[in-house]
Amino acid sequence: MKKGAMRVPDNQADGRRRVVIEHVWPQIDCGRFPIKRVVGETVEVEAIVFAEGHDQVACQLSYWRKNETAAKAAPMVPIGNDRWRGEFAVPCVGQYEYTVEGWIDRFTTWRGDLTKRIAAGQDIGVELLIGAQIVEEVAARAVGEDADLLRRFIQRLREEKDDEARKNAAFDSELLNAVQRYPARDLVSRYEKQLSIVVDREKARFSSWYEIFPRSCSPEPGRHGTLGDCEAQLPYIASMGFDVVYLPPIHPIGQTFRKGKNNTVSAQPDDVGSPWAIGSKEGGHTAIHPQLGTMKDFQKFVTSAKGHGLEVALDIAFQCTPDHPYVKQHREWFRTRPDGTIQYAENPPKQYQDIFPLDFETPEWNALWTELRDVVLFWIQQGVRIFRVDNPHTKPFAFWEWLIGGIKKQFPEVIFLAEAFTRPHVMYRLAKVGFSQSYTYFAWRNTKQELTDYFNELTQTEVREYFRPNLWPNTPDILPEFLQVGGRPAFMTRFILAATLGASYGIYGPAYELCENAPYQPGSEEYLNSEKYELKHRDLNAAWSLKEFIARINGIRKQNPALQSNRNLRFHGTDNPSLICYSKATDDFSNIVIVIVNLDSFHGQTGWVDLDLHSLGLEPSRAFEVHDLLGEGRFLWQGARNYVELMPESLPAHILQVRRWVRTEQNFDYYL
Amino acid sequence: MKKGAMRVPDNQADGRRRVVIEHVWPQIDCGRFPIKRVVGETVEVEAIVFAEGHDQVACQLSYWRKNETAAKAAPMVPIGNDRWRGEFAVPCVGQYEYTVEGWIDRFTTWRGDLTKRIAAGQDIGVELLIGAQIVEEVAARAVGEDADLLRRFIQRLREEKDDEARKNAAFDSELLNAVQRYPARDLVSRYEKQLSIVVDREKARFSSWYEIFPRSCSPEPGRHGTLGDCEAQLPYIASMGFDVVYLPPIHPIGQTFRKGKNNTVSAQPDDVGSPWAIGSKEGGHTAIHPQLGTMKDFQKFVTSAKGHGLEVALDIAFQCTPDHPYVKQHREWFRTRPDGTIQYAENPPKQYQDIFPLDFETPEWNALWTELRDVVLFWIQQGVRIFRVDNPHTKPFAFWEWLIGGIKKQFPEVIFLAEAFTRPHVMYRLAKVGFSQSYTYFAWRNTKQELTDYFNELTQTEVREYFRPNLWPNTPDILPEFLQVGGRPAFMTRFILAATLGASYGIYGPAYELCENAPYQPGSEEYLNSEKYELKHRDLNAAWSLKEFIARINGIRKQNPALQSNRNLRFHGTDNPSLICYSKATDDFSNIVIVIVNLDSFHGQTGWVDLDLHSLGLEPSRAFEVHDLLGEGRFLWQGARNYVELMPESLPAHILQVRRWVRTEQNFDYYL
Repeated sequence: MKKGAMRVPDNQADGRRRVVIEHVWPQIDCGRFPIKRVVGETVEVEAIVFAEGHDQVACQLSYWRKNETAAKAAPMVPIGNDRWRGEFAVPCVGQYEYTVEGWIDRFTTWRGDLTKRIAAGQDIGVELLIGAQIVEEVAARAVGEDADLLRRFIQRLREEKDDEARKNAAFDSELLNAVQRYPARDLVSRYEKQLSIVVDREKARFSSWYEIFPRSCSPEPGRHGTLGDCEAQLPYIASMGFDVVYLPPIHPIGQTFRKGKNNTVSAQPDDVGSPWAIGSKEGGHTAIHPQLGTMKDFQKFVTSAKGHGLEVALDIAFQCTPDHPYVKQHREWFRTRPDGTIQYAENPPKQYQDIFPLDFETPEWNALWTELRDVVLFWIQQGVRIFRVDNPHTKPFAFWEWLIGGIKKQFPEVIFLAEAFTRPHVMYRLAKVGFSQSYTYFAWRNTKQELTDYFNELTQTEVREYFRPNLWPNTPDILPEFLQVGGRPAFMTRFILAATLGASYGIYGPAYELCENAPYQPGSEEYLNSEKYELKHRDLNAAWSLKEFIARINGIRKQNPALQSNRNLRFHGTDNPSLICYSKATDDFSNIVIVIVNLDSFHGQTGWVDLDLHSLGLEPSRAFEVHDLLGEGRFLWQGARNYVELMPESLPAHILQVRRWVRTEQNFDYYL
Repeated sequence: MKKGAMRVPDNQADGRRRVVIEHVWPQIDCGRFPIKRVVGETVEVEAIVFAEGHDQVACQLSYWRKNETAAKAAPMVPIGNDRWRGEFAVPCVGQYEYTVEGWIDRFTTWRGDLTKRIAAGQDIGVELLIGAQIVEEVAARAVGEDADLLRRFIQRLREEKDDEARKNAAFDSELLNAVQRYPARDLVSRYEKQLSIVVDREKARFSSWYEIFPRSCSPEPGRHGTLGDCEAQLPYIASMGFDVVYLPPIHPIGQTFRKGKNNTVSAQPDDVGSPWAIGSKEGGHTAIHPQLGTMKDFQKFVTSAKGHGLEVALDIAFQCTPDHPYVKQHREWFRTRPDGTIQYAENPPKQYQDIFPLDFETPEWNALWTELRDVVLFWIQQGVRIFRVDNPHTKPFAFWEWLIGGIKKQFPEVIFLAEAFTRPHVMYRLAKVGFSQSYTYFAWRNTKQELTDYFNELTQTEVREYFRPNLWPNTPDILPEFLQVGGRPAFMTRFILAATLGASYGIYGPAYELCENAPYQPGSEEYLNSEKYELKHRDLNAAWSLKEFIARINGIRKQNPALQSNRNLRFHGTDNPSLICYSKATDDFSNIVIVIVNLDSFHGQTGWVDLDLHSLGLEPSRAFEVHDLLGEGRFLWQGARNYVELMPESLPAHILQVRRWVRTEQNFDYYL
């Protein structure tokens, strides 16, 4: 080997940078994707930080809003085994970035060693001079009063009359504090990656959705409902405590190959067609179906909803009927078959002749992307800030990453919900590339084990850093078997689970509160006479309606901050497989909610729950009161094991607010 | 937002690249460090590969020797849940790189859909034309005979008389094979990282080390041994079956502050000093201690060792006595204290006045690094290819990464063993930055639980990809308490554990085979009258020597390939905490070794082992023979639970070679 041929590695421009930083956490796919937070949350970061030898290291978090140059620093503290932890707040929507910096803390090393030397009775004369040298290097970096202060200490370390006085100077906390304000920047190691955070507004985490078909809102049976009719139902929706009203597509519906009632292939002349069959001669994705009303009606609807505390979520379904204007204007965005026809949607052997999928492999993909982005921008201009995206898993991930990233750069408050029911890695990838919330497998998780496993995955693994579940017990496409067979108690049970397991959830109403449960045929999850293909007229005041039950639970969600987050979910044991028990608590334990649900819609169930008291901040030795916010009962509990009794019809669950008993006999409060 | 202001993301130059590749495994710290293999091993790679929608994806491994342009491809196959697996061999020492490539497999998608369409009785006329179109695109990329073949198929798909004949063309495997040879390179997604592999020679994985102080090899008591004396002991070392003979530093030993017997502060005139106190007026790290001999003697020693099947490992201890030539020539490589003296080694309050540590924060660090690299190159030129590095954890990681990386670029066969006994992240980092093997915590892992946990961490987690354990039951610095108290059986037990748990292990001899177990004082792990500070004279033929026992076990290691690897280690249950049971098997189960050790050096122990038969490739229903390679016993076992009886003095362990009984009564072999 030629001498000098080996050069210093590129990643280590100065060989004297001795601190190494590993395993910075959280990071998603090696930092390829951002983590997610909402405003006001903190980001807790851990890292392994160390150097060779005995010297003490120090490290800090460095973070900044994206495109701002001024970084802020947050301290990190050692938590054992070379692991360090720190945190910082993200007060604004938008994007943040962070990394970790570490350096040898020569002063602290020296100070620690000095203590040991003194304890061993060693001479420390030279050591004090070394200390003065170290402080001198710091003083060269310091400014103003700090510089003066440090120079006084240098003098004291060198010139005080006796060892005792010099020792006092060495251990002065004022000196320590001043030194730590000026770490040696030239030898700071910086973690090789900058990690990103997307910060959303609070609704991205905590939201209660209600899906409604405006065309079914007419007060007269058989008449096509309008946006105005839907507006008239806003007070009803608001009274149940929802905060997002989500409308299926409101665009013109195609005629060609229109589907009839119950998804039959040929529609009758009076069939209204599926709202997801978008595009007719009246327009496409930026038009409003004439029978629903005008753009003005829509704007009025948005404003009126706001007045009721409701935000409008619009459906984005990027697909076209054969009648969509794009088909004529941009034939190049569709795939042409060898016989000259346009390729319709298929999942062989299934054929959907009424839908032309957009061809994302078109050479004109760039124009297509731009147009679709502009559709979203159009609705943003109409006041929409929440989009429920239909079947995002049939469009390229790179497209969504580009679209959502770009939109959020200008409108960071926009929320995208991914309606993907597909394989796990695909669902998670959509969340990684930018979707703010995601539909889940909740509809098919029914048993205690299924719910526990799934929600531990969603809330206690890295998934929680980027995937925000939105739990739907039903949708227009999904009437789960549990609801088909379990009657009204099943609708109550599944509602409680959705609304307390998930900080965000939604129902497809009024089918839900009216407990509609007839499937198209046995073994099918489709609704009989599905609203997707026909108008509905319902009695919202039916005696069996769950509207008051729903209002009560939404009220509980609003009053209990613990229920507005998912990271704090903990499962507790029960001795009965039909009883599931979990809790949510705020970080400071000021609000603790324990939920116990009877998963059996047919029988009363009793059993013992086995609480993990530590996770609830409760002491085994002190009694506590639990107040059932649903059933109004109050119980005095102590320790981990406590008895419960739940009846499907009358009380399928406890939603227990924990109240610590702060008084004892010493307060003599019985006499007050 | 201005239209067109959002551009395509940089990482996705063509929006039509639809396949995404995630979680490529193995990778260490996001690909920052290479994984390790030895020649002839395979690299098994897994990845999550998928695209949006229903199209089928395909992927492959792409790999190449570093600095070679021609990449090779290895197939990957789906193993469920979007996970793919493939493997390739690494036949040469040096560095390899690999990544994963994925693409939409239009042809296979079309072919699969066609099957479904035919099954559903759909008209496939246009579909066959679409197939022809797809093949046409492939044909444009194909060359020679393949191009002709593909063109013939295009014609058949379009022009064969009836559907049946065209279907036959569509499903012809010749067509499939030809198409798969020409994936659409323009829309191939490539995983964003290239991952590295360092491929070592076999000894990096499988080695048996023997440490010996040449100065104690003199046949005459009291005379300083020479390299020639040590050479005379090579047949003895070879007879025990070792393949690496490791010498503590052989350089001139300093006089200033030389340590006396038992590490006393002031040496007597006849005290020989510590070999790790390197440097005197006779020279430094590239000189040989005159009392040991000359460079010629050393070269002769290396050659002679080779003749005995032994490779010489040299100690690299980058530290200097006050007498080292560097101190005068390169004072800038040491830290000067305010009183003008050079900073000696300390770990306050401990002081090591006889050692000046090199100052890696010197402004002249670049020259220092280069000089130390040249020391290693010097010994490489003398024929050394294995280095045991003393205290690497007191020199910067960046230094080692640079040094080892550079050396191995020119001499990929060089092996570095890291002698770091320190915190886990530090030890692992040293392995990541390049050390081929590492000392471990083995000396302090004694109980069944401790051994199981630790060796599962080393062999069944990602640690195994970069950290190769070398197990030492003793070293000149470490006489573990287990050996101090357990007598000869403890030495047997710990030897068996080291030699069968680890593909690489070593002992400090002859202290080990002679069962030397007197500590300097109670509670100390230092040897009494440690060889580090004085000459030793021993009777290698003592009756209690373990030399034959060691030879037997080294023989077993050589004859059983299963024991030459660590990835295949599996622990099995026992019903007695003093009995530990584990196995190693080759991938094809042609060699299976089950080891059961009595961890109690004082009592005989009996119990039942509970084998995980699946991990051994054994069927519960078939009997198998186990042959004790240590005790010579043969047992007929069946099923998971089998009885064992082990006595500390006579038979502290079984090393069972599994022999399947391949004959039954149908072979009538009893009559042969």
